[in-house]
Amino acid sequence: MADDLQKGLDDVLVAESSLSYIDGDAGLLAYRGYDIKDLAREASYEEVLYLLWRGELPDRDALDEFATELAAERAVDESVITTLDGLAAADERPMAALRTAVSMLSASDPEESDPDDLDAALRKGRRIAAKVPTVLAAYDRLRNGQEPVEPREDLGYAANFLYMLDGEEPDDVAAETFDMALILHADHGLNASTFTGMVIASTLADTYSAVTGGVSALAGSLHGGANQDVMETLLELDESEKDPTDWIRDAIDNDRRIPGWGHRVYNVKDPRAEILTEKSAELGENSGEKKWYDYAATIEEYLTEEEQFPEKGLAPNVDFYSGTVYYQLGIDLDMYTPIFAMSRVGGWVGHVLEYQEDNRLIRPRARYVGPENREFVPIDDR
Amino acid sequence: MADDLQKGLDDVLVAESSLSYIDGDAGLLAYRGYDIKDLAREASYEEVLYLLWRGELPDRDALDEFATELAAERAVDESVITTLDGLAAADERPMAALRTAVSMLSASDPEESDPDDLDAALRKGRRIAAKVPTVLAAYDRLRNGQEPVEPREDLGYAANFLYMLDGEEPDDVAAETFDMALILHADHGLNASTFTGMVIASTLADTYSAVTGGVSALAGSLHGGANQDVMETLLELDESEKDPTDWIRDAIDNDRRIPGWGHRVYNVKDPRAEILTEKSAELGENSGEKKWYDYAATIEEYLTEEEQFPEKGLAPNVDFYSGTVYYQLGIDLDMYTPIFAMSRVGGWVGHVLEYQEDNRLIRPRARYVGPENREFVPIDDR
Repeated sequence: MADDLQKGLDDVLVAESSLSYIDGDAGLLAYRGYDIKDLAREASYEEVLYLLWRGELPDRDALDEFATELAAERAVDESVITTLDGLAAADERPMAALRTAVSMLSASDPEESDPDDLDAALRKGRRIAAKVPTVLAAYDRLRNGQEPVEPREDLGYAANFLYMLDGEEPDDVAAETFDMALILHADHGLNASTFTGMVIASTLADTYSAVTGGVSALAGSLHGGANQDVMETLLELDESEKDPTDWIRDAIDNDRRIPGWGHRVYNVKDPRAEILTEKSAELGENSGEKKWYDYAATIEEYLTEEEQFPEKGLAPNVDFYSGTVYYQLGIDLDMYTPIFAMSRVGGWVGHVLEYQEDNRLIRPRARYVGPENREFVPIDDR
Repeated sequence: MADDLQKGLDDVLVAESSLSYIDGDAGLLAYRGYDIKDLAREASYEEVLYLLWRGELPDRDALDEFATELAAERAVDESVITTLDGLAAADERPMAALRTAVSMLSASDPEESDPDDLDAALRKGRRIAAKVPTVLAAYDRLRNGQEPVEPREDLGYAANFLYMLDGEEPDDVAAETFDMALILHADHGLNASTFTGMVIASTLADTYSAVTGGVSALAGSLHGGANQDVMETLLELDESEKDPTDWIRDAIDNDRRIPGWGHRVYNVKDPRAEILTEKSAELGENSGEKKWYDYAATIEEYLTEEEQFPEKGLAPNVDFYSGTVYYQLGIDLDMYTPIFAMSRVGGWVGHVLEYQEDNRLIRPRARYVGPENREFVPIDDR
């Protein structure tokens, strides 16, 4: 055991968890035992947060209480807006701005951090989940020279975010579609950002530290960045004015890597991608502009032909259709990964609390491969 | 393999590294093959940063060039000071303020982040190392109602920090002692904060994201927080006005946990603690006030008597004497962990770059222990 290098930790079990279950061969993702497809179609993001954090779906009264608490904590301190305004002036990337803002939020948390008080840690997580949409919408507006829009407590989580983005209440289709996208991204086992949060939490650092770490990791192009890459690819296809099948054939012939394909844990089409495929098509039908869905579907069809990719396991992942959904909702491309972060706060907080319940400091080892027993030579003799 | 739970990853090798070598039985710590004791006594922190990041000790010209580059990047943007002032007004903990400030620094970095350009990533690391002392000294002054002191390029890394803390150039003993403490804390294998940085970097997130994660993890009481706890314990001993041996006997009889004792990877006295023991004694002799060293030494003597702790492996770790050193240098207790972070930037950046050279996304698994195949019930039927 101690002699094997486990780079990437691919098959290493670092914890027990009852949050999400993934069957990569069956294309199944479940939160607390509930199929993600049922949750996406029938529950709200608030219900899913409750489920992830407390283990059970709420009844109506419990959900109302929880959603009210969450809505009441949406406002952020003016100092956060001031800092975001400075970051916008410096043209900071939204994920970096979010990382800074989440870290700043701890300063206005009304409760002291106490590693023995997991209820307090959960309340901190709830505050972060409540405020991240406010931070992101404010940042998007500030960098476009607009005043932030104050959150509204009477709107649901998804609708309120879309409202804060452009100052207008979204229609039901937009709000429901966005809510569904949030549910689909809320948790996914011990991905790199969730695991980052767990390593941080294992030192007994607070929820803000853990979530700041999660945002930091999600920013990487191998993790959260791919949804934006997919949409950029589709925009490039659109601008080329080529036939989509010709475009993808040429791209593959030129050994181009297509983002949003393949996933370390799925050997079949990602169940989240299945739902987003439907929503992408629906949005196109509603608006009369189906080309974004059609581009993605054409690429999927081409790439899944057995002759093209005979290897098992190459199939669209969650990022492949999420971009087309956000694009059709009118959201800027570089907000896609921040929106992923907004949703994943649910999973980060859930896993951190679950790990801290039976905590052990996470401290792996490296195999030392450097020089040994070197004699120190004073600088003037080197 | 895949069936064993590796909670804490205690003996799991997640990477190869040529940065630091630890022999927990021999009490040996080496950076790039050089014994930490030689480096602490004969090198400067700048030399050690160069060694950690480039693999070799610099000659005089190389060191001069490196130290000049590092010194030239000490100033921070005014927006960072403004944010720190707001955090000070909110009485934010220094580690949380540092986490926010490090995250903010990316906005003023002159280079785009490019995951394929490890030289650029190293320059970003150098800028972080240059600016962290400025951030910390500014924060310490702001929260005490004082104006920050601008960094001076003509002072060494350690001396400049002490100068920025109180506006006066430190004497040589103080500067050299502080420099030595920085060297001793610069790297220590894949501790939780370094590993956090590696997990973040494995997604190809940038150096700021990785170091922000490192700060987040170091804030936890199981990791960086213990040096402050030790000094608080010694202050309590002092206030009790008891004989130190009586105090520690009573504490042990009352099953009190003494911070700064034991370490997952050392079975003998931590080599860093050995050096700090000497420096703590020296500072006491120089000032004529030896009690802080004496308290620590008395506790060490009592706890290492075989009758008290017959188990192998209980010995002072690096935190046990570092507090007495910082206290004698006049540094506030809640700055000890931030100072640890300042030093550890060296190791974080070194490990992140080393890992990214042959990167693999870090994504472990959890053993699912929750409910399965639950049927979704609509909310009004629950």
